[in-house]
Amino acid sequence: MEFDTISAVSTALGEGAIGIVRLSGDQAIEIADRIYKGKNTLKETPSHTIVYGHLIDPKTNQRVEEAMVSVLRAPKTFTREDVVEINCHGGIMSVNRVLQLTLTNGARLAEPGEFTKRAFLNGRIDLSQAEGVMDLIRAKTDKAMNIALNQVEGRLSKKISILRQALLETVANVEVNIDYPEYDAETMTHELLKSKASFVIEEINSLLQTAEQGKIVREGLSTVIIGRPNVGKSSLLNSLVHENKAIVTDIPGTTRDVIEEYVNVRGVPLRLVDTAGIRETEDIVERIGVERSRQVLKDAELLLLVLNYGEELSKEDEALFEVVEKMNVIVIVNKTDQEQKIDMEKVYQLAASKPVITTALIEDKGVEELEQAISDLFFAGRLEAEDVTYVSNSRHIALLELAKSTIEDAVQAIEDGVPIDLVQIDITKTWELLGEIIGDSVQESLLDQLFSQFCLGK
Amino acid sequence: MEFDTISAVSTALGEGAIGIVRLSGDQAIEIADRIYKGKNTLKETPSHTIVYGHLIDPKTNQRVEEAMVSVLRAPKTFTREDVVEINCHGGIMSVNRVLQLTLTNGARLAEPGEFTKRAFLNGRIDLSQAEGVMDLIRAKTDKAMNIALNQVEGRLSKKISILRQALLETVANVEVNIDYPEYDAETMTHELLKSKASFVIEEINSLLQTAEQGKIVREGLSTVIIGRPNVGKSSLLNSLVHENKAIVTDIPGTTRDVIEEYVNVRGVPLRLVDTAGIRETEDIVERIGVERSRQVLKDAELLLLVLNYGEELSKEDEALFEVVEKMNVIVIVNKTDQEQKIDMEKVYQLAASKPVITTALIEDKGVEELEQAISDLFFAGRLEAEDVTYVSNSRHIALLELAKSTIEDAVQAIEDGVPIDLVQIDITKTWELLGEIIGDSVQESLLDQLFSQFCLGK
Repeated sequence: MEFDTISAVSTALGEGAIGIVRLSGDQAIEIADRIYKGKNTLKETPSHTIVYGHLIDPKTNQRVEEAMVSVLRAPKTFTREDVVEINCHGGIMSVNRVLQLTLTNGARLAEPGEFTKRAFLNGRIDLSQAEGVMDLIRAKTDKAMNIALNQVEGRLSKKISILRQALLETVANVEVNIDYPEYDAETMTHELLKSKASFVIEEINSLLQTAEQGKIVREGLSTVIIGRPNVGKSSLLNSLVHENKAIVTDIPGTTRDVIEEYVNVRGVPLRLVDTAGIRETEDIVERIGVERSRQVLKDAELLLLVLNYGEELSKEDEALFEVVEKMNVIVIVNKTDQEQKIDMEKVYQLAASKPVITTALIEDKGVEELEQAISDLFFAGRLEAEDVTYVSNSRHIALLELAKSTIEDAVQAIEDGVPIDLVQIDITKTWELLGEIIGDSVQESLLDQLFSQFCLGK
Repeated sequence: MEFDTISAVSTALGEGAIGIVRLSGDQAIEIADRIYKGKNTLKETPSHTIVYGHLIDPKTNQRVEEAMVSVLRAPKTFTREDVVEINCHGGIMSVNRVLQLTLTNGARLAEPGEFTKRAFLNGRIDLSQAEGVMDLIRAKTDKAMNIALNQVEGRLSKKISILRQALLETVANVEVNIDYPEYDAETMTHELLKSKASFVIEEINSLLQTAEQGKIVREGLSTVIIGRPNVGKSSLLNSLVHENKAIVTDIPGTTRDVIEEYVNVRGVPLRLVDTAGIRETEDIVERIGVERSRQVLKDAELLLLVLNYGEELSKEDEALFEVVEKMNVIVIVNKTDQEQKIDMEKVYQLAASKPVITTALIEDKGVEELEQAISDLFFAGRLEAEDVTYVSNSRHIALLELAKSTIEDAVQAIEDGVPIDLVQIDITKTWELLGEIIGDSVQESLLDQLFSQFCLGK
């Protein structure tokens, strides 16, 4: 396909040593040559080499920057188009200047995700791989990154392709049977068709089984700490944040703002929802009642319910148990350093099968047990196997579920004795749904929407 | 010189399409080869070329990332050492992983500025050029970037070298006269020495003349808005920020947090000091008195004193005029949309020679006039000439001033009839002081301190 030439800043914005402005398209090298002055032109420069030179504004002939310029000719590039990467000084002013220079000399500002979109449209990667690229950039934990990397490398795509191939063969055989009843093809009896469909269902199920964990790892568990005033909610928040010092702070100089609400508890990324809000949940039940509290908390995927070991259970405590009844909850009985006033038997009774942890957060006691409980609740070591292909993307999960119910309809139809040529409509539909995961037969508007979520310059 | 191999993330941290981990040192290629798997080893890869491959943790043999790797062999590199640039996906997790991988396989984490420090120690650039690199990255306006770029390209260094050469020749001639009085060298009469010294003084003066503006452009003018409650200080702040939409917001997706306190008024970067603070200055005089207010405001380089057109001048207003008496002030009489109650004649009288602007900020009136007044006050068009070499760095300015006073001492000594061999001590000292600007004869501790202000990875 042929597209115009796009340009964007491809490094994160801020004060860095190096910034990259990337061009992609038929005119990439020509446009870059208009603003580049070095020993040779970029046109004369071999592919996959780096040259040093100056960037010049051709209108004023003034030097704008010095730069290392990489020339990457199609097709061995990220987009499969000609790509020029201009590495300049990493200041905001500098990259902005260089970007402007490319834009005034023939390039168009790339839309978010447009480079990756071209990689997809030019057939270098499929849609699930493209989505993996975005996940990779946004990954907050090692595990999330591993899942994304597998997806970028096409492991999910491969699984999906195998399923689609199986469905395609089924459809083909059915069609042969319909069109050439005299032809000596494998006769598609109801039984055979059913067995093929069962194989596909089984495989989809095993993918969907990874989905819950995959989604958690990708998106983080939205976590809310609740409890009456003064039971130690802030201490708990501080312990979690402090012990698990967010996710990326081992790079000196990293600003933690971006990720401050994330903590990584033994591979489980907790998204601590609006810490200001957490502090205000204390009187939530009192203020708005059990039913409405339930509504407010309904999006939380993990609730940490904190009680005070040094106080008797109150009506509010019991109300909280009622609110969180059907949710993922860990009960934390804090302040075991104080004299016991709480009725632990009653706590266990109210907790039913939910885990109960005792802590003395002020003395750092019990935090490890709590972390273990969180890890057990969601993974129980299941995420350790590195070779499992995880489905982590909500779009993929929704499509897999739809595909599953469609092919189950087909099996039901077979059992009901529906003619094969009608059943095959469902099978074709399943094939199409799976295709949408990897971007086959996907609509332009969906593509636009998907890629617009990418960061700029990717 | 030989150093160990260093590694750092060289792009700004955040979600970007591409992140770069940069290695520099004798072992750079060897270390990179330990974690790189591609068609060929990096050792076999020619200099200044880019190869695609995977990054592998050699301990587990697990894939960590995919990457484009640039091999740049000494001496044609930023540091004059072997350099490897690993371009990986730009997520925080991804670059952190790759960085860790280089660190566990033989590289040492670079200190801030260490790459540039090596470029200096290995003789590729001098100290003022190195400082220019940092200024370039931090530049907030076009003009600041131009000044930094000139400095990086060595224009200041060249001027300094010419002056040092002149001083060196003088010293050499004096020594010849002392050591070989019979030798037929140019006789260094007092008069001749004085004329050489005068040339140097003149040149230093012309550099120092650029310093005031250079420093403003580089660092921004610390600006404080003062005035009684309710005269429109917040409106003024908003107008300035809104009209001059910070400096770099034309890149879509730029976070403005970093620079929000900067506005660029016709090339004059205003550093609006602590906007919270601004709002509290309203009753500053009332609260702490004229003398202490002066102390508090003494670091401000520009004061915008706001009065209310719709109210009579109060004692507080007059006290404010007293406080700012000897400072750079623009008087703004706001709310001309209201009925006049202020005595403008009195205002002009209090303002003395300071500019007075009338505005109706609520109707956006007078903002242009204010901006023109700011620009006139500091530049009056003087910064337009692009070919002037600006001195913008406080360290350079201090050294130039010291050099100037030292050589002036020498001239004085000559006039006092001090023997030439004593005068030459001052001339040598001047030569040394100028040398410190470009990093000649500069102390290790100063170097450490200078480079530690750099951003990481540069």
